[in-house]
Amino acid sequence: MKSENSWAALRAIRAHLSSTGLTSESAAVPQLPLVFLDSVLRGIGQVMLQNNSYAGLLFLIGIFYNSVLFGFAVLVGAVASTATAVLLGVARSSVRAGLFGFNGSLVAIALLYFLEPELLTWGYVVLAAACTTVVMAALLNLLSTWKIPALTAPFILVTMLFILACARFGRLNSTDVLPTAGLPKAAAVEGIVTFSTIVEGLFNGVAQVFFQGAAMTGVFFVAGLLISSRVAGVAALLGSFVGLLVAWGLGAAEPAIRAGAFGFNSVLTAIALGSGIFVLNAASVAYGTLAVVATAIVFAAMSAALEPLGMPALTAPFVIVVWLFLLASPLFPQIRTVASR
Amino acid sequence: MKSENSWAALRAIRAHLSSTGLTSESAAVPQLPLVFLDSVLRGIGQVMLQNNSYAGLLFLIGIFYNSVLFGFAVLVGAVASTATAVLLGVARSSVRAGLFGFNGSLVAIALLYFLEPELLTWGYVVLAAACTTVVMAALLNLLSTWKIPALTAPFILVTMLFILACARFGRLNSTDVLPTAGLPKAAAVEGIVTFSTIVEGLFNGVAQVFFQGAAMTGVFFVAGLLISSRVAGVAALLGSFVGLLVAWGLGAAEPAIRAGAFGFNSVLTAIALGSGIFVLNAASVAYGTLAVVATAIVFAAMSAALEPLGMPALTAPFVIVVWLFLLASPLFPQIRTVASR
Amino acid sequence: MKSENSWAALRAIRAHLSSTGLTSESAAVPQLPLVFLDSVLRGIGQVMLQNNSYAGLLFLIGIFYNSVLFGFAVLVGAVASTATAVLLGVARSSVRAGLFGFNGSLVAIALLYFLEPELLTWGYVVLAAACTTVVMAALLNLLSTWKIPALTAPFILVTMLFILACARFGRLNSTDVLPTAGLPKAAAVEGIVTFSTIVEGLFNGVAQVFFQGAAMTGVFFVAGLLISSRVAGVAALLGSFVGLLVAWGLGAAEPAIRAGAFGFNSVLTAIALGSGIFVLNAASVAYGTLAVVATAIVFAAMSAALEPLGMPALTAPFVIVVWLFLLASPLFPQIRTVASR
Repeated sequence: MKSENSWAALRAIRAHLSSTGLTSESAAVPQLPLVFLDSVLRGIGQVMLQNNSYAGLLFLIGIFYNSVLFGFAVLVGAVASTATAVLLGVARSSVRAGLFGFNGSLVAIALLYFLEPELLTWGYVVLAAACTTVVMAALLNLLSTWKIPALTAPFILVTMLFILACARFGRLNSTDVLPTAGLPKAAAVEGIVTFSTIVEGLFNGVAQVFFQGAAMTGVFFVAGLLISSRVAGVAALLGSFVGLLVAWGLGAAEPAIRAGAFGFNSVLTAIALGSGIFVLNAASVAYGTLAVVATAIVFAAMSAALEPLGMPALTAPFVIVVWLFLLASPLFPQIRTVASR
Repeated sequence: MKSENSWAALRAIRAHLSSTGLTSESAAVPQLPLVFLDSVLRGIGQVMLQNNSYAGLLFLIGIFYNSVLFGFAVLVGAVASTATAVLLGVARSSVRAGLFGFNGSLVAIALLYFLEPELLTWGYVVLAAACTTVVMAALLNLLSTWKIPALTAPFILVTMLFILACARFGRLNSTDVLPTAGLPKAAAVEGIVTFSTIVEGLFNGVAQVFFQGAAMTGVFFVAGLLISSRVAGVAALLGSFVGLLVAWGLGAAEPAIRAGAFGFNSVLTAIALGSGIFVLNAASVAYGTLAVVATAIVFAAMSAALEPLGMPALTAPFVIVVWLFLLASPLFPQIRTVASR
Repeated sequence: MKSENSWAALRAIRAHLSSTGLTSESAAVPQLPLVFLDSVLRGIGQVMLQNNSYAGLLFLIGIFYNSVLFGFAVLVGAVASTATAVLLGVARSSVRAGLFGFNGSLVAIALLYFLEPELLTWGYVVLAAACTTVVMAALLNLLSTWKIPALTAPFILVTMLFILACARFGRLNSTDVLPTAGLPKAAAVEGIVTFSTIVEGLFNGVAQVFFQGAAMTGVFFVAGLLISSRVAGVAALLGSFVGLLVAWGLGAAEPAIRAGAFGFNSVLTAIALGSGIFVLNAASVAYGTLAVVATAIVFAAMSAALEPLGMPALTAPFVIVVWLFLLASPLFPQIRTVASR
């Protein structure tokens, strides 16, 4: 394991961006157990765009702190998707960077969040994690046309499909946290935002990236981020705060704000756009802020749009907003990308 | 301001098509107030694909004739999205052609159509208009791979998201014209189509491009089109008529036909494909007619598909049909594109 | 008519893949009636990826065996879409390979499955079949960026739109097999799978590719496949069997398993990925099996996701899974594509 400097987030994005040159390397080199473990931990780190095994370890500790089941799920998912990539001969550098671990770990935690932890569910989890590796490779190829990263899109697609399928499969039993299908309707302001709403919401927003509703877990995550990249840690907290402010200002329900529901997508957008890909100037700060604000609104929109399916929005708002803001940036001369090293 | 000849529509599409070479020009030149005003008016003209400030002015007069609120909204939206483009340094020629104004003006009118005109709504409108500029730039980059224009896709995406989000935000209050969510079901023929249905429907179909349900506004719009391009004006009326005939023949409800609901998408398809991009021959006339007919059917389909979300189809049918017919045309040797000048 | 060797399926995919060089040939050569008939039969064969007129003929006989109406519909659809391609001047080799027939034949059978066979419906069918030709050309252009085939995507898009539109058109009357719109909910295991479930489900799974619920029709289809390509025939049966096993294992309802609902998409995935595009080795067998298993799960997911619209999933699961597995394959050195001849 080797530590990373404060631009790990930048390099993680770069790794994403350049990872379509994958096949040029020699294929399928057997991985030593420790190297494999490092890849798995980096994969967990990549959930928040950190190519850093210490960050991954702290994220894992934060999850185990809240729930042994979820901690175990994250490990199983990251191992299954990373192993699938190794067996299919994916270039070693991509596997080492954790690019084939983060979607697997997220899919595993999502499926165990929404399905009872029975034996069949664990088999289903391994299958889903293997599928994220295929979807990741497909998206790397598809998106290479525009040189934008796949982000957590494989996790979102596979989770949505594998959860929706349960409506046809009687042997997979959903937990009671899966929303029931309904039709969206107008909202009324609900509850009063207090200082404790803001503090809890701030850290829950970070914790919710891994489906965790515990502020303390959020603290572990921020610590992991700070170890990997101070900029990423600060961006995460600012993102959570801005998402929370937008939701509060527009009249979202207080329990949802406290739970961090309007935070986790904004956290990821802030890390992705705020830690090192754009040259820092007034325009890029405004641009990043617009993206974080838009992410909170898109979260509200997608969460309403998915109500008839009884599905959560997951991190789709983050993916859509970051894709759009990355695609748009070459047309905006005021927004300059940091030169590749 | 300079007037345009009858091929303005063609050039507007061309401008769309070639607008991905945007960044080659020198960035962020300060714009004089009159130049900026001209860009804003052209932006309003571009809603019907006219790079012509007189057309934009007549569209604006037509809207103010029907509603001062909507007229003001169109101005605010076009100014906000155009100003965002200027601040981010978009190439001057694209801004001057109104390419960063039309989606902003449409988003503003849509949000004020569906939300109460309170102070918070106006702030929401400015934010949404700024977002259309980012989405426009993103789509110009994305679609440059196939050299097809972005059309009103930024307006559709941003409007859908910003309206859907209101289901989570209690301080944004919807008007009673926003459809309530429901499940699509089989239709019965309703009402009898008379001569007055056809005359009103014909002009309402044009007026509905800007969400206006007033035949007289449609007359102003046709006048604006004729000033900019006789071909575009005729295409618009024919498009509205064909859309109306398809709806009538297949048994759509009379009030919807009279309101122009089946017209406005067909109007836009007819202008886009009918005014100068294809060499005129039997095959291209049949091709354009098929597109206009298909647009009316796709409108019916999308409007049913969006019922569970309580969302209108907006101009999505136009965008999808024109994208498909433009993408397909290179494979059809009988359909020849007018050579670039 | 000329017979094809056992690699017809491979060549069919190849034809798809290379069919973007369409316009390089001389345009619009008049087709003799027998040549046109051959193109139509190959078009019907292409529904199961067979560029072979005998396969098409056997598929047609299998359908007529079950229903004269559907047999006639298949012919009308294939003729309408192929004729549209000829009139628009599509390159002869693509038309001859049946690439502009299979979506038309599927759209026709689908519309007559869900709509009453009245005069207006037949006009609607011809219009829809003509639209599949435009969508096919559009997708061939769009997907040429990644060199992946369009598969049955034009059929799916046009059928969904033309069926959804009926919710607005009172003169098009749906049959009682069109699902009514509803919200997805959790499933319970229903019925007991017996030996007869498996045998019927196996052949119904093949028959359902053309919306036929008759095991004997499935036998005709398998015969047609074996004539064209032994590998494709075996792949189809294995695909149907694996889809059935997945559904059974996860607890799908017995009547749906018996009807072949979980089979037809897996059949198509198995033919597409299993008959000759990948070099045969342990990794490619595992890869293909993963795709077939995923197809059954994606079918369950999409069929639940479309419940609020009262729409069936059609062959969308097959298209999505095969697109993803083809897009991903270049990044997996263990999965090697058979070299072009």
